[in-house]
Amino acid sequence: MNDQFFHVVDVATFRSLLRSFPALSRTEHIPLNESCGRILAEDMVASEPIPPFTRSCMDGYAVAAKDTFGASESIPAYLELAGQVDIQSMPEFAITSGQCAVVVTGSCIPEGADSVVMMEHCHRLGDGALQVARPVAPGENILYRGEDCDRGDTAVFAGSVLESGRVGILAALGISSVPVFQRPRVGLIATGDELVPADRPVYEAQIRDVNSPAVSCLIRQSGGVPIPYGIASDDETELAEVLAAAAAECDVLLVSGGSSVGARDITLDAMGHLPDFRLMAHGVSMSPGKPTILAASGDLPIIGLPGQVTSAQVVAMILLCPFLRYLQGNEREGIQRRRATLLRNLASKQGREDYVRIRLSELDGELQAEPVLGPSGLLRTLLEADALLRIPENVEGLYKGQSAEVFPLSRD
Amino acid sequence: MNDQFFHVVDVATFRSLLRSFPALSRTEHIPLNESCGRILAEDMVASEPIPPFTRSCMDGYAVAAKDTFGASESIPAYLELAGQVDIQSMPEFAITSGQCAVVVTGSCIPEGADSVVMMEHCHRLGDGALQVARPVAPGENILYRGEDCDRGDTAVFAGSVLESGRVGILAALGISSVPVFQRPRVGLIATGDELVPADRPVYEAQIRDVNSPAVSCLIRQSGGVPIPYGIASDDETELAEVLAAAAAECDVLLVSGGSSVGARDITLDAMGHLPDFRLMAHGVSMSPGKPTILAASGDLPIIGLPGQVTSAQVVAMILLCPFLRYLQGNEREGIQRRRATLLRNLASKQGREDYVRIRLSELDGELQAEPVLGPSGLLRTLLEADALLRIPENVEGLYKGQSAEVFPLSRD
Repeated sequence: MNDQFFHVVDVATFRSLLRSFPALSRTEHIPLNESCGRILAEDMVASEPIPPFTRSCMDGYAVAAKDTFGASESIPAYLELAGQVDIQSMPEFAITSGQCAVVVTGSCIPEGADSVVMMEHCHRLGDGALQVARPVAPGENILYRGEDCDRGDTAVFAGSVLESGRVGILAALGISSVPVFQRPRVGLIATGDELVPADRPVYEAQIRDVNSPAVSCLIRQSGGVPIPYGIASDDETELAEVLAAAAAECDVLLVSGGSSVGARDITLDAMGHLPDFRLMAHGVSMSPGKPTILAASGDLPIIGLPGQVTSAQVVAMILLCPFLRYLQGNEREGIQRRRATLLRNLASKQGREDYVRIRLSELDGELQAEPVLGPSGLLRTLLEADALLRIPENVEGLYKGQSAEVFPLSRD
Repeated sequence: MNDQFFHVVDVATFRSLLRSFPALSRTEHIPLNESCGRILAEDMVASEPIPPFTRSCMDGYAVAAKDTFGASESIPAYLELAGQVDIQSMPEFAITSGQCAVVVTGSCIPEGADSVVMMEHCHRLGDGALQVARPVAPGENILYRGEDCDRGDTAVFAGSVLESGRVGILAALGISSVPVFQRPRVGLIATGDELVPADRPVYEAQIRDVNSPAVSCLIRQSGGVPIPYGIASDDETELAEVLAAAAAECDVLLVSGGSSVGARDITLDAMGHLPDFRLMAHGVSMSPGKPTILAASGDLPIIGLPGQVTSAQVVAMILLCPFLRYLQGNEREGIQRRRATLLRNLASKQGREDYVRIRLSELDGELQAEPVLGPSGLLRTLLEADALLRIPENVEGLYKGQSAEVFPLSRD
C-alpha cells in the first residue's frame, strides 16, 4: 500500500482534497423549536408578507401625516376620532382627512392612515376630538406590510445555520417544521497497543485514550455525531474488521493513529482492505499534524489523525471541523479569524504551515499573542492557550511585533 | 404594583441586580463523553501525574545525552544496544553509560536515559552496536513524568466550560464521569391577545409568536433548557395562573410582553400575585430594550422581555445569555467583544446605551461597521446584521471613523 502513492501535501491541497467529497444530501424534518444550530437544507420561501399587514410600533393615534404638518404645542392640529382598532382585529373602518383612530403597539393601521402619533404628544378632548402637538412624517411609527419580506422572497437560504434571528422569521411565517441536513456520523477508532479507555485501570506502561473523547467534543461542536468504536490493537486483521464495521455505518471515519512508524504502517495496511480504497495524502505539511492521512473507500472519507494528543486536536480544529460543516452544506468555514501582534520571535520552516498555541491579551484595543511552548505530546499547551496562531508556509518565521492570523479556541 | 417602585435603571445596574441572585448549586454527574459544553461544578484534582511516566516523543533510541555530545556524520558516537522497550510495558532494564535502548513514540524511557535520538540520525550495526550521527540535549524528544500535571494539581477548575482540551486531560486522568452544574430551566411565557403559535392559522389581525422560538434558541446556546408555557392572553387572572405554574418548575422566568402600555400593566399586576414578589427594575436605559423588567419572587429571577421582536432578542443576547452562564457558575461573560471602525455617523441619546445592528467587513485587517437601520419591530435588521455595536451611555453618538465595541452574533 505505502509505496503506491506516498506523498505529503500542503494544507491548501489537503483542504481541496477534502472538498472533493460530496456534501451529505440526507435531510430530515425537525420541529422549528429544536432546530437551533442545525443547518437548513432548503431555501425557505415566504408564503405571505411579513408583517402581514401595516402595523403600529407605538401606542397612539393612526393619522394621515399631512393632517399633522405644522402642528406644535402652541398651535396644535385638531382631529376627529373615527374609532379604535383592537389589537387582534382588522379595522372595520377607514379614516378620511381630518380623522384619526386609536391604536396600540401592534394594531393594524386603518386605511387612510400612513403614520402614528405617539400618545404622549396628543391630548384627548371630551367631544371625540384629538389635539395633536407634534407633526409626524409619513411612515413614522409604523411597520409596512411586507417590510421584513414579501410573498415569494427567500426568507432564509439553504446552508444557513439556524440561530435566533432565522428561527424568528421562520416562526413569523408559520413554519413549525424545518428541513435540515442530517448530522454527519463520524466513526472514531483509536489505535495503539498502549491505550486503554478512561474508565479502565492502567497497567505497566499503558496510558488512557485521550483522542477519542477530546476529538468527540470537537465533532459535536461542529454538528457531527461522534460514534466511538473503541480501541483497536496494532493488529492489521483486527483493525481491518473494525474499519469495515465502521465504514458501513458512518459518513466519515477517523482513525487516531499509533504515532510510531510501525503502527502507522499497520493502520494503512488495514485501511487497504476497505473496498475501492485509495490513499489521497500521506502526510500534510503542517505543524503540529504532519502524520495526518487522507484516504477514501468509495465516497467515504477516512482521516488518519496523528496519535499525539495536541496534534490530533489541532488537526481536528483546523481541517476536520470545517470539513464537517461543509458536509452539512454550510459553506462558511466554522473558524473565526482574528489578527494579533506577536510578543516574541517565532521560528518556522519554509514549506510548513505552523499552528502555534498562544495566549491572547489586549493592549489599547489590540490583540497580543504570547506563544505557549511545549511538545505536541503534552496536553498542557492547549489548555493554557486561547487561540492558534498561523505561520504561513512561505515564511521562515515571524518577528516580534509582526501581525499574524489567529483562530480563537472555542471556550464557551 | 406599578406605583410602589417605578424606576428605569442603567445597563450596569441591571447587570448587578441580576448578579444579586445566587448561582444555581444543583449539580449532576454525567459521562465525560457527553460533557462537551457543560460547566464543571468542582475542581478536578489529578490523582496521578500526567504523563504517568517519562515517555518518548519519537521512534528512535533512548540515550544518556552526554554520550552523544560532539557526535557528527563524520565522527559518529558508538553506543551498545541494551534492549528494546515495548510500548505497553515498563522497561525491565536500565541503561548505563555508553548504552542505548530501542524505543517507539510513547515508550517509557528506561532509567539511565534522559533523551531520545531520532531513528533517522542513527545507523544500526550488525553486532548490537549503534552509530549516532547527531548530538541530543538532555530532555530532547521526551515528555517528563508529570510535565502536564502532577499528583495533587488542579487539572481543571470549577466553572470551566468543558471543551476538547479539558475533556482530554480529564480522560488522561481516568475520569470518566464529571460533576457539572445542572442546566437552568428557563420558563417562557408569551403574552399578547394578538399572538398565535407558529403552527396555528392566523385570523384577522393575529400574528405569530416569534419571541418564544427565537429566545429559546438563545437560551439553548447559553446552556439553558427552554420550557415553553405557551401564549397567555392579556388577562391578569389567566397570566397569574401560568406564572404560578412556571414559577414552581423553573429557575428563571421570562415573560415576553405585550408592548402596549395596557398589556405591560396587566403583566406587572399578574406578577404581583407571586409570593414574595418584588419589582427590581421597571425599564432599562438601553435601545432597543427599554421596556425590560426585572423582578423576583423569592430567589426566582423574573425578566420581562419587550414584545418587539428585535428588542427581545437583543435584550436576551446582552443581558439574559451572560446571566444564564453566571447561574451555571461560569463567570466569564459569554459574549466575545471586538472593535470595529464606524463607516457612518450614528446618533444616540446621552444616558442611554445603544446596541446598533451592524454588518461587519474587513479592510486591511481592520473590522468596519456599517449600521443596518430599521425599527425594532422588524426581524430583518437582525437577519442582515453580523454583530451589535455598543454606543456607551455617556456619549451622544459616534462619528464616522471612530472605533467602537462590537459583539459578533453567533452564526455557527
